[in-house]
Amino acid sequence: MSQGAINRVLSTRYADGESRPVPDDLVVEEPLEIHLDGTLVATTMRTPDHDFELAAGFCFTDGRLDGAPVQSCRHGRQGPPTLDDPNVVSVDTGGLAPVGEPRLSTASSSCGLCGSTSIDELTDRLQPLGDVPAWSLDVLVRVPDAVRPHQELFARTGAVHAAATFDLDGSIGVVREDIGRHNAVDKVVGHLLMAEQLPARDLGLYVSGRASFEMVVKAWAAGFSALVAVSAPSALAVATARRAGLLLAGFARDGRMNVYSPEALHG
Amino acid sequence: MSQGAINRVLSTRYADGESRPVPDDLVVEEPLEIHLDGTLVATTMRTPDHDFELAAGFCFTDGRLDGAPVQSCRHGRQGPPTLDDPNVVSVDTGGLAPVGEPRLSTASSSCGLCGSTSIDELTDRLQPLGDVPAWSLDVLVRVPDAVRPHQELFARTGAVHAAATFDLDGSIGVVREDIGRHNAVDKVVGHLLMAEQLPARDLGLYVSGRASFEMVVKAWAAGFSALVAVSAPSALAVATARRAGLLLAGFARDGRMNVYSPEALHG
Repeated sequence: MSQGAINRVLSTRYADGESRPVPDDLVVEEPLEIHLDGTLVATTMRTPDHDFELAAGFCFTDGRLDGAPVQSCRHGRQGPPTLDDPNVVSVDTGGLAPVGEPRLSTASSSCGLCGSTSIDELTDRLQPLGDVPAWSLDVLVRVPDAVRPHQELFARTGAVHAAATFDLDGSIGVVREDIGRHNAVDKVVGHLLMAEQLPARDLGLYVSGRASFEMVVKAWAAGFSALVAVSAPSALAVATARRAGLLLAGFARDGRMNVYSPEALHG
Repeated sequence: MSQGAINRVLSTRYADGESRPVPDDLVVEEPLEIHLDGTLVATTMRTPDHDFELAAGFCFTDGRLDGAPVQSCRHGRQGPPTLDDPNVVSVDTGGLAPVGEPRLSTASSSCGLCGSTSIDELTDRLQPLGDVPAWSLDVLVRVPDAVRPHQELFARTGAVHAAATFDLDGSIGVVREDIGRHNAVDKVVGHLLMAEQLPARDLGLYVSGRASFEMVVKAWAAGFSALVAVSAPSALAVATARRAGLLLAGFARDGRMNVYSPEALHG
């Protein structure tokens, strides 16, 4: 966790009719411009930290790389180095990415479809996952408790979402936090991308919030075979997970969860 | 609450090592295209219900109306009536809205800045609120409990955010729910807009989640003089509320809250 992710301010705490001044740690929220091969592809409100992972992960889950390798990430715009801008990241694929044809435009801190008008259009680039590992429900249900000690920024600010990977034994891998839940996922995916660990067939993705359509699409795009959410899924998220062949569990807390995909777990 | 906002699916409930099939109510999430005077200005993932309020409210809080009156809203694209498309809303101002100059592009279900690169650029269209009513902290702290009985969709699905208005006495006005918290706010603002109740100087805005920068900008744009959030604000949200002269309270729950703006409530 970067110290740049937190700002301390003075607030007024009110309880039982009394108010008193208290210092309060707030999560930092700043815009990040993501440029791909010299073209601005998104501006997202994010918590500064792991910006390269966020930028690369966004380009990947948004379908903008189409197999092109990320050759470098740097702060600032492409071109002759001038002043670094901490709120700009340039992702470079050497011109191999099909910049002109975005598929899933998630130009936001926590959700967002910009300009794509059809759900089919957003998912037709993705193939069903096919053979996936057999996940133990007993492992999946313990994931939220295993991630919690890693949610340092949440512990201090109460304002951020987490995303994390876990393996078939329930061991937690990379954990990322951000004010935008989609950013947290993109940071995790960007980490795996740059470590050449995609597709993440033998890993599951944990998200500390709800499972919306786009969270399912991001998990699917990265090839995760399971998605565990602390809160509820949407109807479209469930339909999409079933189409993907992605195990989807929601309301995972206190040793319980609901599995929405696959449709039938019973004999 | 529209019945079209809920889909029932079969899920597998897992607890204490046992799993059993249970029917589960999920919130519907579908894309809505928003057209303003014939131009597509946004596509947002939303819960179908109060679509006209959402579309008109989005155009307003996004700074796209610039004082132009909303003459009509209809489902489907502009032009000769063909088949109504329930996932398209056309907002018509008779060509008076400056479509070509979007200021705050929130083309997403829960957040999102698309293309605007400067925070100043996003707020320089807005003037500080100036003289605002004196809010009683004792009234503000009771707002979350007063809204809860109206959160019907949340009670059934656990998957949606609420936004609501309240007056100086703490009476709750309009309540709207949506899978996207920004949509819920836009629905509330659209309702007030079409009822000719903006700017909402004598009203407060309640949001069931966090107070991000964009929630503060939306509240400011609509002229609310107070914003009460159940969860944490971001540092930028606090700075923006202080600049606006907007009372901002966070962590409003269980009879407690933190007031972040104005900076000093003490003598």
